[in-house]
Amino acid sequence: MNILFMSTVDKADLWKQCLTAELPGINIYVYPDCPVAREDIDYVIAWKPPAGEIAKYPNIKAILSLGAGIDGITCDPDLPRNVPISRLVDRCLTQGMTEYVVYWVLHHHRRMDDYARMIAAREWDNYIQADTEQTPVGVLGLGELGGDAAKALSALNFDVLGWSRSAKSINGVTCLHGADGYDEIVSKCRMLVCLLPLTEDTRGILNADTFAGMPKDSVIINCARGGHLVDQDLLAALDSGHLAGAVLDVFHSEPPDPSHPFWAHPKVTMTPHMASLTVPQSAARYMADNIRRVERGEAPLNLIDLSKGY
Amino acid sequence: MNILFMSTVDKADLWKQCLTAELPGINIYVYPDCPVAREDIDYVIAWKPPAGEIAKYPNIKAILSLGAGIDGITCDPDLPRNVPISRLVDRCLTQGMTEYVVYWVLHHHRRMDDYARMIAAREWDNYIQADTEQTPVGVLGLGELGGDAAKALSALNFDVLGWSRSAKSINGVTCLHGADGYDEIVSKCRMLVCLLPLTEDTRGILNADTFAGMPKDSVIINCARGGHLVDQDLLAALDSGHLAGAVLDVFHSEPPDPSHPFWAHPKVTMTPHMASLTVPQSAARYMADNIRRVERGEAPLNLIDLSKGY
Repeated sequence: MNILFMSTVDKADLWKQCLTAELPGINIYVYPDCPVAREDIDYVIAWKPPAGEIAKYPNIKAILSLGAGIDGITCDPDLPRNVPISRLVDRCLTQGMTEYVVYWVLHHHRRMDDYARMIAAREWDNYIQADTEQTPVGVLGLGELGGDAAKALSALNFDVLGWSRSAKSINGVTCLHGADGYDEIVSKCRMLVCLLPLTEDTRGILNADTFAGMPKDSVIINCARGGHLVDQDLLAALDSGHLAGAVLDVFHSEPPDPSHPFWAHPKVTMTPHMASLTVPQSAARYMADNIRRVERGEAPLNLIDLSKGY
Repeated sequence: MNILFMSTVDKADLWKQCLTAELPGINIYVYPDCPVAREDIDYVIAWKPPAGEIAKYPNIKAILSLGAGIDGITCDPDLPRNVPISRLVDRCLTQGMTEYVVYWVLHHHRRMDDYARMIAAREWDNYIQADTEQTPVGVLGLGELGGDAAKALSALNFDVLGWSRSAKSINGVTCLHGADGYDEIVSKCRMLVCLLPLTEDTRGILNADTFAGMPKDSVIINCARGGHLVDQDLLAALDSGHLAGAVLDVFHSEPPDPSHPFWAHPKVTMTPHMASLTVPQSAARYMADNIRRVERGEAPLNLIDLSKGY
């Protein structure tokens, strides 16, 4: 079996080692190095492939994405349409995102920035402790990642609301959907977490309208994609005093240009797209399981529907 | 019914209002103002009472502590021995502590300080994401607060170990006890959270021996009492490079003296004793329930055993 690894972002050596441990006897080649005939490549494991490249391998049985989002695959406009494409769903990927969301929600809930400033000024006081049960937190997107984060926030006794395109049901989470549901979640939540897939419907969804609908002094946490956010609209909502803060892990270009105002904005907390990282030791197991499924004649898990965009 | 409120720390007006809402018709006096005869006081609600003062009210039916720890009561050496003393156990008090513990464990687990420094330097990179299931976190003390924090960490898939004086059993937590158990939890945990009661057995337990037993680069989180920690031993363990960091919410004197090295130590994160605050709106309900129990002839909940010290 011949596998082609096509990513400039992921650590090819580590992946090779982890995949070989799971699937002894396979050959893994790292694009653009492909010493066998293109016709002999069985699988492509990819993230942000150069446009049109995957289509050059005519006999591949599946494309396996190295990420949970699919924009790192659909960025290639010439993907073969007859080959199943599978998203990465991995315990560690979900876990990392949930950790990130819980951490930043608690950060703002408990006013940790204010306390840090207090200590830096050698002051000693405390704020009234907000009751978690009275604190509505919204999660936009209730897929693998959003659903898990919503459940974890609910387990910590937050009043959790969730929103998704189609109706869902999650224990302990008030699930909303559609346009009315969107207005409702935005208007109610003191903290709003974006974990939506990036599609033509969701591009720029975090815009002036959304911010104007949020309660005063609320906080936005974007750990989905930079394309969800209209940067200038966020800056305006922060500078007008309407929003209290933003936590941003993702950006239109990464890293953002050195001149981007986010870097030094006092109400913006940036992290370098680290909310959730693929852990090859764990993800290779999932990838190997998926390949074994296809070899047995089954469909791979977590297929991407290109028509829906996720 | 006459209640005497004896605390210089808690907000008497807010408590009066919340207790009166729960127990209409009661009289609440705020020490030292007591317009009725001392013999007519039925209950004392107290935190850090001046020594010998509570004993001057001969007919009180119970002493109700305003805190979860009991050192704010036992600091009075002349407490009446024939009066039941009840600790405060409140949903919000437990919740606040669990939030604090989860937040700071995630902070160190995800290297948030390092990421903040990275962004401040306009750098863009990421660290290998540690697998939570492979990350042992220890909780010293498995009472109301420690038990809840341990459960929350376990729900977030950490490898949680707990230690208490006597054997306990908590789902998802490896429970250890006794001297051997203490050595084991200390030697295994990458992060160690102290939520012990302060007794003669636990005073100074976070000392050079404990730190030497911890793995290199581990982190200590003390949100119990300043008296658990030997400050100089912690500074030595941080400065030698053995420990990676400390999060401290409690201190021998609060606030610490302006010259105390903790304020400016690069490896110490201080918070102003805010990990968990009593929320009168919620705690007054518990207090009123306890008073009603005593009025019905029952023992109050969560009695303190002065011989054990908790």
